[in-house]
Amino acid sequence: MNHLEALVEELGDRVVTDAERMEKYRWDRANDPDAGVPLAVVRAGSTEDVQAAMRFAAAHGVPVVPRGAGSGLSGGASAVPGCLVLSTERMTEIEVDPVTRTAVVQPGLTNAQVKAAAAEHDLWYPPDPSSFEICSIGGNIATNAGGLCCVKYGVTTDYVLGLTVVLADGTAVQLGGARLKDVAGLSLTKLFVGSEGTLGIITEIVLRLIPRQRPPATLVAVFATLDDATNSVLAITRRLRPSMLEFMDRPTIHAVEDMTKMGLDREAAAMLVIQSDEPAGHAATECELIASLCEENNATEVFATDDPDEGEAFVAARRNAIPAVERTGTLLLEDVGVPVPRLGALVNGTADISAKREVTIAVIAHAGDGNTHPLIVFDPSDPDMAERARTAYGEVMELAMSLGGTITGEHGVGRLKRPWLADYLGPDVLALNQKIKDALDPQGILNPGSVF
Amino acid sequence: MNHLEALVEELGDRVVTDAERMEKYRWDRANDPDAGVPLAVVRAGSTEDVQAAMRFAAAHGVPVVPRGAGSGLSGGASAVPGCLVLSTERMTEIEVDPVTRTAVVQPGLTNAQVKAAAAEHDLWYPPDPSSFEICSIGGNIATNAGGLCCVKYGVTTDYVLGLTVVLADGTAVQLGGARLKDVAGLSLTKLFVGSEGTLGIITEIVLRLIPRQRPPATLVAVFATLDDATNSVLAITRRLRPSMLEFMDRPTIHAVEDMTKMGLDREAAAMLVIQSDEPAGHAATECELIASLCEENNATEVFATDDPDEGEAFVAARRNAIPAVERTGTLLLEDVGVPVPRLGALVNGTADISAKREVTIAVIAHAGDGNTHPLIVFDPSDPDMAERARTAYGEVMELAMSLGGTITGEHGVGRLKRPWLADYLGPDVLALNQKIKDALDPQGILNPGSVF
Repeated sequence: MNHLEALVEELGDRVVTDAERMEKYRWDRANDPDAGVPLAVVRAGSTEDVQAAMRFAAAHGVPVVPRGAGSGLSGGASAVPGCLVLSTERMTEIEVDPVTRTAVVQPGLTNAQVKAAAAEHDLWYPPDPSSFEICSIGGNIATNAGGLCCVKYGVTTDYVLGLTVVLADGTAVQLGGARLKDVAGLSLTKLFVGSEGTLGIITEIVLRLIPRQRPPATLVAVFATLDDATNSVLAITRRLRPSMLEFMDRPTIHAVEDMTKMGLDREAAAMLVIQSDEPAGHAATECELIASLCEENNATEVFATDDPDEGEAFVAARRNAIPAVERTGTLLLEDVGVPVPRLGALVNGTADISAKREVTIAVIAHAGDGNTHPLIVFDPSDPDMAERARTAYGEVMELAMSLGGTITGEHGVGRLKRPWLADYLGPDVLALNQKIKDALDPQGILNPGSVF
Repeated sequence: MNHLEALVEELGDRVVTDAERMEKYRWDRANDPDAGVPLAVVRAGSTEDVQAAMRFAAAHGVPVVPRGAGSGLSGGASAVPGCLVLSTERMTEIEVDPVTRTAVVQPGLTNAQVKAAAAEHDLWYPPDPSSFEICSIGGNIATNAGGLCCVKYGVTTDYVLGLTVVLADGTAVQLGGARLKDVAGLSLTKLFVGSEGTLGIITEIVLRLIPRQRPPATLVAVFATLDDATNSVLAITRRLRPSMLEFMDRPTIHAVEDMTKMGLDREAAAMLVIQSDEPAGHAATECELIASLCEENNATEVFATDDPDEGEAFVAARRNAIPAVERTGTLLLEDVGVPVPRLGALVNGTADISAKREVTIAVIAHAGDGNTHPLIVFDPSDPDMAERARTAYGEVMELAMSLGGTITGEHGVGRLKRPWLADYLGPDVLALNQKIKDALDPQGILNPGSVF
């Protein structure tokens, strides 16, 4: 371990080697049981620190696992044996330019902190993963994170104008910048968004902001069958563009109701939570139209409010669905997506898999995007059930692929979904991915085992 | 030329070798005097045709210049000697899915045709280059084209969800698809957007559409100084997000007025054309606020209308600025961009270059994006003036770079701007571009001389 001393000399106490202190840096929220023990954790404070760490790693062939807040759900930040875990948690600066409507952001800030800094200038950073209060903006960029507003406002990459990236050999490059338009050279900024730490380490981000969102009106609709709910989704997206269009099935409703006691309808097969952020007057009109579309599709109850706090209670219920279901057992958390017209087939097919494998699968969905999160619940002390859960996990991905869908809509491939990536992409696209990986990281030291 | 016969056998009359018929395929709108004579023009009708052409080119080391409508302004589609010009003009199919709000589009359609097909379903494809009636959607993707609506609606890449691309060896790959969210593997779709035919040939595009734009309200403001106009732009973008925010300086106003006789103010130093597409009621309020901001910045006249046709007359005047200025001489057409707060420095600095080099430079700008098009006017029969014009062309790019700006905001690097690319990107980013180019096109047969 002699060679590590040079890095400690350069970075001082930003290098952590104490086994106990390193423990929490080994896992992300995927809780990969195979997570390795790092050589060291580097708690970088600057782009230069990251460069020093990467130069060290390149010189000694040490794998590097970049890490934001560790809230990832696909195991993209699980440590591998003998790696450097490169944490950006200490890099938390932000500067907002209200004229250009951009923010220059360090990766360690949470998504919520970015939103708060933008709001001080009456601006808004839209992407909103359910975990927005704890996930890092760096991790959001690394996974091209989604969220609830994407149905109207798009995903993370749509808001990334520039990046500072430290490459595999320690070179730092500035890509793009605070310009809405820039087509000089290849679109490298966008290539690094969603690359899950496999091509370089993001140390600074230039984000596009938009004016503050108007207070939304909220509509909740309840259905006696899954088909009625998914048909309502199609009827809505064919005509309107709500700012939120979320779905919860019965197992989810029960888990949320157990936790919140807010009076959700336990008899319902599914529930939609919908928002409109059109300007005053127009939001109410949009909600009325949405209500009538839900009623045409046999909604058993429709409730609408233009009180933002009352609406937020339902959105919070939706956001808390994962922790609520987690209280009922260990989860395998899925993240598949299909073209919206196939949503019904995906939801029904998932219910079939649940019945066949005799495991509860609670389904929540960013329904307007066709992006579902089937939560497969199992008891890890029951090996047979755990095995059935794992089988169901693969079957849900295969179902999505058979419907023209993706194995991951917004969480990333990480280590958990890598076994399915080749099937999804096919050999030619996989080879194309690999060519770019090899060109940028010939030693293969950047987040090995994740994606590739 | 023996080896060409195999291609003719495969593709029949889609291969053009007649010198006269090939003539129009040699140039795009940059009118590169060094355009070469092609070996042949392939008028592809399908992805398979493009694959056949690329396999032929790879086998024989023949360069391939992809071509949409030939309306490019940076020489990206100029033929090189002995190349295959690969035209996609015959590939014009489109299918719109109103539920997913996507369109599957072939590259030969014009931007206007895509907009029209979307409008049949009450949907809208926003990106709107001034040349939207003649430019191809394939060329728009290849250059990551911008336009007038980008200030509110973003650029081409924000609307591209998937691509079919034929790679240098003739392999066809499908990247992304009709899913708003998909993070499985690297963001290759976005890498090909803006790659100007240097990484592969785009044969099919999945576009994201949004609901039809509301009829906009229009505001025209006239100013006695450049500073008053650019200060108004900053005052507006700090508080509002109009759907259009365009700038024309005095030489442009004169050229447009000469052509249209619509009564523009020839005394004005500059004019802004601004639109709001907020819902009924709200657009008028936004226009009133914009008018007051212009007046605070010494506008000498402000005219507002919520009659879409009346407004469109001013927008058409702005769109016709390039042809109008072109009537006064030969153009070197610039496309630089800066962060919005530097717009005034860019506009004033361009005026200084015009004075110093004694050439007229008419400036139009997508002002809200900081993206300007200085049109350098010269008489090609006057070699000294032509030389001064070329000097000014380089100086405008250097000015933009000194202000933290880009050498091309939306037209692309092509062959015309390649000499400045290395300075703009710097050696590390240039090397990164080259690594990806080499990985994907090791023979260097894809659009050689353009960008790289």
